[in-house]
Amino acid sequence: MRDKIMNYAVIWFIIGCVIRVEAMFMLLPGVVGLIYKERSGLLFFPLSVLFYTIGYVMSRRKPANTRFYAREGYVVVGLSWVVLSCIGAVPFVLSRTIPSPVDAMFEIVSGFTTTGASILKDVEAMPKAYLFWRSFSHWLGGMGILVFVLVILPIAGGHSIHLIRAESTGPQVGKLVPRMQRTAKYLYTMYFVLSVVQLVLLLAFKMPIFDALCDVFGTAGTGGFGIKADSMAGYSNAIQNITTIFMLIFGINFNFFFYICTFRLKSAFGIEEVRWYFAIYFLACIAIFFNLKYTGGEQYPDIHHIAFQVSSVMTSTGYSTVDFDQWPELAKTVLVGIMFTGACAGSTGGGIKVARFVIYFKQASVKMLSMIHPRSVKVVKMDGQRVDDEVLNTVNNFLFIYAIIFAGSMLILACDNMDFTTNFTAVAATLNNIGPGLAGVGPARNFADYSDLSKIVMIFDMLAGRLEIFPMLVLAAPATWRKNG
Amino acid sequence: MRDKIMNYAVIWFIIGCVIRVEAMFMLLPGVVGLIYKERSGLLFFPLSVLFYTIGYVMSRRKPANTRFYAREGYVVVGLSWVVLSCIGAVPFVLSRTIPSPVDAMFEIVSGFTTTGASILKDVEAMPKAYLFWRSFSHWLGGMGILVFVLVILPIAGGHSIHLIRAESTGPQVGKLVPRMQRTAKYLYTMYFVLSVVQLVLLLAFKMPIFDALCDVFGTAGTGGFGIKADSMAGYSNAIQNITTIFMLIFGINFNFFFYICTFRLKSAFGIEEVRWYFAIYFLACIAIFFNLKYTGGEQYPDIHHIAFQVSSVMTSTGYSTVDFDQWPELAKTVLVGIMFTGACAGSTGGGIKVARFVIYFKQASVKMLSMIHPRSVKVVKMDGQRVDDEVLNTVNNFLFIYAIIFAGSMLILACDNMDFTTNFTAVAATLNNIGPGLAGVGPARNFADYSDLSKIVMIFDMLAGRLEIFPMLVLAAPATWRKNG
Repeated sequence: MRDKIMNYAVIWFIIGCVIRVEAMFMLLPGVVGLIYKERSGLLFFPLSVLFYTIGYVMSRRKPANTRFYAREGYVVVGLSWVVLSCIGAVPFVLSRTIPSPVDAMFEIVSGFTTTGASILKDVEAMPKAYLFWRSFSHWLGGMGILVFVLVILPIAGGHSIHLIRAESTGPQVGKLVPRMQRTAKYLYTMYFVLSVVQLVLLLAFKMPIFDALCDVFGTAGTGGFGIKADSMAGYSNAIQNITTIFMLIFGINFNFFFYICTFRLKSAFGIEEVRWYFAIYFLACIAIFFNLKYTGGEQYPDIHHIAFQVSSVMTSTGYSTVDFDQWPELAKTVLVGIMFTGACAGSTGGGIKVARFVIYFKQASVKMLSMIHPRSVKVVKMDGQRVDDEVLNTVNNFLFIYAIIFAGSMLILACDNMDFTTNFTAVAATLNNIGPGLAGVGPARNFADYSDLSKIVMIFDMLAGRLEIFPMLVLAAPATWRKNG
Repeated sequence: MRDKIMNYAVIWFIIGCVIRVEAMFMLLPGVVGLIYKERSGLLFFPLSVLFYTIGYVMSRRKPANTRFYAREGYVVVGLSWVVLSCIGAVPFVLSRTIPSPVDAMFEIVSGFTTTGASILKDVEAMPKAYLFWRSFSHWLGGMGILVFVLVILPIAGGHSIHLIRAESTGPQVGKLVPRMQRTAKYLYTMYFVLSVVQLVLLLAFKMPIFDALCDVFGTAGTGGFGIKADSMAGYSNAIQNITTIFMLIFGINFNFFFYICTFRLKSAFGIEEVRWYFAIYFLACIAIFFNLKYTGGEQYPDIHHIAFQVSSVMTSTGYSTVDFDQWPELAKTVLVGIMFTGACAGSTGGGIKVARFVIYFKQASVKMLSMIHPRSVKVVKMDGQRVDDEVLNTVNNFLFIYAIIFAGSMLILACDNMDFTTNFTAVAATLNNIGPGLAGVGPARNFADYSDLSKIVMIFDMLAGRLEIFPMLVLAAPATWRKNG
C-alpha cells in the first residue's frame, strides 16, 4: 500500500520553507536592535542569513510527488514547531541573554505556543531586540506558522488541508474545508487588521510604541509575555481595558468575525460556542466579584481588574494587572477552572476549548436521556448540525490523552519537590498555554526554579497544548517511523 | 408507550425490603452495646423495631406488575442508598454521639460508600456500639446492599439485572448476566469467606476481637474507618501486613477468585485488568520507595509502610500507618494518582477503576494507529473480546461527567477558603471513596472544618462515586420525573 511509505521529500521541503520564513522574520528584531542601538541585537542579521541559506537549500527543489496524508500532516506540523523553536532559541543562547539552552528553548516555545510562561527572573534587564523577538513569537505562533506559510507559498495543493487540520485549534475545522487557501488568507488578514486596530487604540492612549507592539503581539496571539516585571500592572486603566477587550476578541472563534464582516449577524451570534464563551466569561467574573466582596474583604472589588484577569486567563493570554495568587480560594479555583475550558476553537487561544466542552455536555445529556428513556434515539448537534461520530471519537480520546499527559507531567514535576498547587497549576498553565499559575508559579513568580527535566516536560506540554496533542503524539509514536507499520 | 410511566409500586416495594434488611442489621450494634455494657448502644433496639415496621408496611404487598427497566433500576439504587444513609444516620443524631444531622449523614454515607472519610475529631471517645455500626456499614456497603437483598429475597425476577448493573462497580458486568442470582450468592459467599479468613488471621496475631472485626469490615468493604486516632499505626507489623494483603485482595475483580475457585488459573491470571492492577501497584511502590530514599532522606525507607499505604490508597480503603502527608512531593503525587485509577471493576474498591483506564488506553492507541495508518481498521479488545460501542460510549461519557462533578465540587468547597491542595484532595478522596486526602484533610486531620454546604456536596460525591455516578444523576435529572418525558 502506498501510504505505508512516508513522503520524506515533501516533509523536508515544507520544513525548509518554514525555516526560510522564520529567518526572514528574524530581521525584525535586528531592526529593533538598530533603532535602540543595542549591539547584541545585531546578532539577528547574520543568524537570519544563515538560517535562510539552510532553509533555501532544504526547499530548493519542489519534490515531484507532493502527495501526502494525515500522517505526514501531523509529522510536518509537529516537526516544524520543534525546528521553529530550536532555531528561535539560538539568538538567546549565542547572545548569552539566556545562556542555558533548556531555558532558552523553554522561553521561545512558551513564545511560539503563545503560553507566556517565563523563566526570566529579571525581564526588564533583557535588551529590547530580544524582548521584541520573544513577544513577536506570540504573534507568529498565534495563527499558526504553517497556515502562514500556506498563504504566501501554495505548496501542497489539495493536500494542505492535512496541515491546517493539524495546526488549527479546536475540535473541527469543517467550515474551513472548501475554500481553504482563501480562508487562510482571510484569517491572516483579519488577524492583521485586528492587531493594527488594537495598536492604534493603544497608541491613542499614549502607550509607548515598543510597549504597544509587544502588548499587541501578546494579546493577538493570546500569549502574554510581559516586558515589565509587573506584567501589565503599571499601565493606565484605559490601556488595561483595551487589552481586556482585545484579549476577549482574540479568544473568539474567527468564524464569528467572518460572519460579522459579511453582515450575517444572525449567524454570527448564533454560533453556540461563542454564546457559551461569553456566558462562561460573565459567570466567572460574577463569581470572583462576590468572592472578593465577601471573603476578600474588599467592599467594592475593582471590576476592571476582574474583567482583565478573567479575560487574560480564559483566553490563555496570561497577562496580569494584580497578583491573583493573593485572591481568596474560590476566585483562584475559578481561574484554574477557566484555564481548562480555555477559549473558542478556531481562535488563537489555548485550553481544552469551549467547543469541546459543549460537545462533551451534549454527549453526556444525550447519554442521560437514553438511560432514562432507552427507546428514544437522540444525536449530538452543534449549531443545528449533527456532530459526526468521527469527531465525537476524536474529542473523547482527546480528553483521556489530555488527562494522562497532565498526570504524567505532574509526576515528573513532583520530583523537584515543589508543592502540589504549584505543580498542578504549572502543568495546567503550560498544557493550556496560559502562562502563570498559582503559588510558586503565580503571576509574581516564574518557572526558573524547576529542574531542566521538568522544563523539558513543560516544553513538551506547551507544544502538545498548542498543537492539540495529536501531532506531538504522532511524532513520538514508534509506529509512525516503522517502515512496514 | 409503556416505559413512559415509572413503576412506582415496585420502587416502593424494593425500598421497603432494603429498610427491613437494614433494620435487622441494626440489632448487631445493639448486641455490641449489651456486651460492652454501654447504655447508649441500647438505642439500636427500639430503632431496629421502628424501621422494621416501616419497611414491613412498605413491602407488605408484592406489586402485581414487577416489570421494570433500566430507569427504575437507577432510581431504585439511587433512592435506596439515600434512604439507607438517612436511616443509618438516625442513631448518631438521637444518641448525640454526632449531634449535627449533616455530620451524621456525612459519617454514615462515608461508611456505606466505603469512603472512610470522617468528621470525628476524637474517634476514641465514641461508644463501641457506634464504632461498630460505623465500621459495619463499610462491610454492608462494600458488596452492595441491593445485591444482598436480591440474594435473600428474589424480588424482581429477570429484571433484577437492572439493579445489579446500577449498583456494581466498574464499566461492565457482562460476565454476571446469565446466572445472576446464583452469581450474586457466590459473590457474597466469597466475600464472607475472605472476611472470615482475614478475621482468623488477625485474631491469630493477637488483635483484640472488636478491633479485628472493625478492621475486617473496613478492609473487606475497602472502607477504612479507623477506631483509633492514629488509624492502624498502633498495631503490630504482622497485623498491618495482613491488612495490606487483604486490602489488595478485596481490590481485585471478583471474577479472579471465581476462576481460582474453579481451578481455572490460566483464566484467572489472564484477566488483563488484574495484571494492570498489580503492575500499577508495584510501580507505585517502587516510585515511592526511591522518592523516600533520595528526597525523603531515609536511607532504607520502610517497605512495609509503603506497601500498606499504596495498597490502602489504591484500593480506596484509606487506612494509614504513617502520616503520608509528610512524605515528599512525588510520593504524595503518586498517591493522588492512584486515588484516581482506583481498584478493579467488580471489586469493593472505588476510584475510576483500572478496567476503565485500560479501555481508555486501548481506545487512545487505536485512535493513534488510525491517525498514522488511516486505512487500518482496529477495534478495542479486552481479554480477547471486542468491547462493544455501547460500553465505550458509556465509559467516555463517564470521564467527562466525572470531571465536571469534580470541578463543580471544587468550586463549592473553595467557598470555605481552604487551600487548593486540601480542596483538590478532599474531592478526590470522597468522589473516589478513599477517605483521607492531603494537607488539611491528610491522614492526621479530618473533614470536620468544612461548612455544611461543602459536606453536603461531599455526601453527594461519595454516593456518586460509589454508584459510579449514573444512578445519582438519573435520580437528580428532571427528565426522570416528568410524566410525558
